[in-house]
Amino acid sequence: MTIPQIDEEVARLLQLKAQLDGDDGKQTFVLKTPKGTRDYNPKQMAIREKVFNTIFNCFKRHGAETIDTPVFELKETLTGKYGEDSKLIYDLKDQGGELLSLRYDLTVPFARYLAMNKITNIKRYHIAKVYRRDNPAMTRGRYREFYQCDFDIAGQYDPMIPDAECLKIVHEILSELELGDFRIKNCENDVRILDGMFAVCGVPDEKFRTVCSTVDKLDKLPWEEVKNEMVKEKGLPEEVADQIGGYVSLQGGMDLVERLLEDPKLSKSSDAVAGLKDIKQLFVYLQLFRITDKVAFDLSLARGLDYYTGVIYEAILTQAGVPQTQDPQNGPGVEEASVSVGSIAGGGRYDGLVGMFDPKGRKVPCVGVSIGIERIFSIMEQKTSAEKVRTTETQVMVASAQKNLLEERLKLTAELWDAGVKAEVMYKKNPKLLSQLQHCEDTGIPLVAILGEQELKDGVVKLRNVTTREELNIPRDSLIEEIKKRTADC
Amino acid sequence: MTIPQIDEEVARLLQLKAQLDGDDGKQTFVLKTPKGTRDYNPKQMAIREKVFNTIFNCFKRHGAETIDTPVFELKETLTGKYGEDSKLIYDLKDQGGELLSLRYDLTVPFARYLAMNKITNIKRYHIAKVYRRDNPAMTRGRYREFYQCDFDIAGQYDPMIPDAECLKIVHEILSELELGDFRIKNCENDVRILDGMFAVCGVPDEKFRTVCSTVDKLDKLPWEEVKNEMVKEKGLPEEVADQIGGYVSLQGGMDLVERLLEDPKLSKSSDAVAGLKDIKQLFVYLQLFRITDKVAFDLSLARGLDYYTGVIYEAILTQAGVPQTQDPQNGPGVEEASVSVGSIAGGGRYDGLVGMFDPKGRKVPCVGVSIGIERIFSIMEQKTSAEKVRTTETQVMVASAQKNLLEERLKLTAELWDAGVKAEVMYKKNPKLLSQLQHCEDTGIPLVAILGEQELKDGVVKLRNVTTREELNIPRDSLIEEIKKRTADC
Repeated sequence: MTIPQIDEEVARLLQLKAQLDGDDGKQTFVLKTPKGTRDYNPKQMAIREKVFNTIFNCFKRHGAETIDTPVFELKETLTGKYGEDSKLIYDLKDQGGELLSLRYDLTVPFARYLAMNKITNIKRYHIAKVYRRDNPAMTRGRYREFYQCDFDIAGQYDPMIPDAECLKIVHEILSELELGDFRIKNCENDVRILDGMFAVCGVPDEKFRTVCSTVDKLDKLPWEEVKNEMVKEKGLPEEVADQIGGYVSLQGGMDLVERLLEDPKLSKSSDAVAGLKDIKQLFVYLQLFRITDKVAFDLSLARGLDYYTGVIYEAILTQAGVPQTQDPQNGPGVEEASVSVGSIAGGGRYDGLVGMFDPKGRKVPCVGVSIGIERIFSIMEQKTSAEKVRTTETQVMVASAQKNLLEERLKLTAELWDAGVKAEVMYKKNPKLLSQLQHCEDTGIPLVAILGEQELKDGVVKLRNVTTREELNIPRDSLIEEIKKRTADC
Repeated sequence: MTIPQIDEEVARLLQLKAQLDGDDGKQTFVLKTPKGTRDYNPKQMAIREKVFNTIFNCFKRHGAETIDTPVFELKETLTGKYGEDSKLIYDLKDQGGELLSLRYDLTVPFARYLAMNKITNIKRYHIAKVYRRDNPAMTRGRYREFYQCDFDIAGQYDPMIPDAECLKIVHEILSELELGDFRIKNCENDVRILDGMFAVCGVPDEKFRTVCSTVDKLDKLPWEEVKNEMVKEKGLPEEVADQIGGYVSLQGGMDLVERLLEDPKLSKSSDAVAGLKDIKQLFVYLQLFRITDKVAFDLSLARGLDYYTGVIYEAILTQAGVPQTQDPQNGPGVEEASVSVGSIAGGGRYDGLVGMFDPKGRKVPCVGVSIGIERIFSIMEQKTSAEKVRTTETQVMVASAQKNLLEERLKLTAELWDAGVKAEVMYKKNPKLLSQLQHCEDTGIPLVAILGEQELKDGVVKLRNVTTREELNIPRDSLIEEIKKRTADC
């Protein structure tokens, strides 16, 4: 059969199916959002806005521009970028025309944007939703539709300076959000240090990749299990595994890097030495940025994505900022879960990705970081679940105690809007004063402007403080000024 | 064949196709965004942010909360809501699991959200992208992926008060954005006024809907052509069409509404009278809101969407804010195009939509407005194309004229970041002073903090104003304060 014949046959069958479906008649209607997705209600949006503002402000403080790309890309743009994870990409239905897929991250669209516009040099952030047909674990902040907050620096620069800025940014954001203590692990991906380490430990060349993916499991499994996999599944001699174990258990700062540079075995690998010298340079800049308190060099760090080519890093929360949730995969009471809620930011250098899009393969060196915002939301939500969160910014409610004053209320409300005051009015002809005051209590509106026959006659408005219940007559023509003065911090 | 058999056969064929496809080998790679979509570059993002802020602020001024919903919905959620336009919905590929579609607007997801959470009363805004497989006309700001900015009021209230607020919001936003003169047309959809008018003109009941869709073309076609369609295609007697023509050519304010209430023919339709009385009430509120200068009652207004049940409105720009672009459909030089760039906002009342989602059919009355932000972007972009638009907010560049001061530059930059100053530094060990200054000129950075051996020794920093080129030594410990003072308006 040829492809056109298959297409024709498929179309015929689907049409037949549609007819049969139609015969079925009644649909049972399910009122839900798609699996792995959620709505944000106003309270969640208020928290989200607060978190976003912290992140925006940090990115802007570092002089970044922002761009936006479509939510879907040509399918072929995403092809070959995600290794095994490609199966998690959402495809759009072929409705004629181009084959499209929802974006899987913001990095590949960024690289496509750079290549397409021949940009060799930009510092940009991008905050947008990405899509993965993963097994969602929503209680732990893992969704199929989720936000990524990416900051990347593209351009040919002196080594490790932009890389250090990315780590500085993670440090600033996690400090400002006050999520609890955190640690930023860094390493070099694959090349050089890890490979050098594997070589001196006696891992055969052809097993580097597969052993690397076993090492990557160290953040989820204890060493004994990882070792087991190396020996039983990957076929490493036990003493080779033990040597690897000696290295990957190390964590530390500048002194560890210096010690490893002197390590009798590791120093024999010129690759490892070159990599370690880079990390040493990185730590010099991190010291200048005064963030070495939280940053640790860690040989156990490896990241699955194919496109990383240099420094990689990952931030984890070390204090349980969230109560432990039931996790069907690990079960309750796993010790690891109580000291780490997992990765909350990550990134690294990817010097080859843009070249994959350029017709002539021209490279644009890039380094970036992605903040795992959904986990941050989960933590913030749980922290604020008891507190009252305002979901509007309304400064004043225009109310009346008497009947037949709707028109006066609307007129005053419009005057306030036109003066830039955030004001609400009830959409009822004759609402009860109590229900107007109740609405203020419920939503945190601080002031009520009360109109009555007497106030209208006197050219004043009774301004009530919702918390103290204090009331004061304010001349109509100084009302706006008075409201603005009293709500200057809202 | 049964449905499961079809599914099996289709799966088998598609697998075969995938194998054949794979054999094809090399792909020809196209570097582009999908049809009808675009990237936003930093300059476009800066304009977008400005427009969004105006709109956000207006929505917040009116006391609205915000929500967010997933970019896709269960396919069945969208089914039966868009009439003929349903063919423009993007479906996701069936990869196992639920059948999904990209959202077509924000109104249906909003109604689904209300029904699902049993909310009977909310004032919310939602700014997000929606998707339509339409024929894009990108030069006129029509895309397949585009933003909608929606503001809606749900709840059982006294008639026309929330409706009037929606019109006030359109008026505020279009005034603030300074896009040129505009007019807001309003009418009642279908029911009552239009149907009453058709009835008194002698249109048979069964032709109301089809004649209505012909009337809807009046914003694109001259009356003669519309009349032609009524007579030739829809089979109306010419005198009936002429009578309709007499009504749909009318535009006006409160006096027109009052005149029509006295109209000997129209006043015979109790439906029309009830509708006109509503419109009269609406105009009373619009007068209180002081926006009647821009609002016109217009019997020619009809909106295609099925779900409108009451007042509808549409805002158009009447001054050509944009140079006329070639429009393949209308051709150049169409007179209408030079006085109107088309609809820029629209909305209305839809009291039945939420009930379509509620298992018991409970209704939640809603009224809302959607701002056509992409057209606004197009206009703003053309207006600002000559101007220099800043794409970052950087206040100061940390520079040096001498070599080997990278570490000092990084240290000072980190101090500034930690104090909340927006600062940049070049990622080079020894950049030329000229290239550092040039970067400030190019991107609009107002200040440069210059470090040199002498300044370091003296404990000062040379602060340079990029525009005036004035330089002043500032003691290191008052630098942050000085930068904040000088850039207070940035």
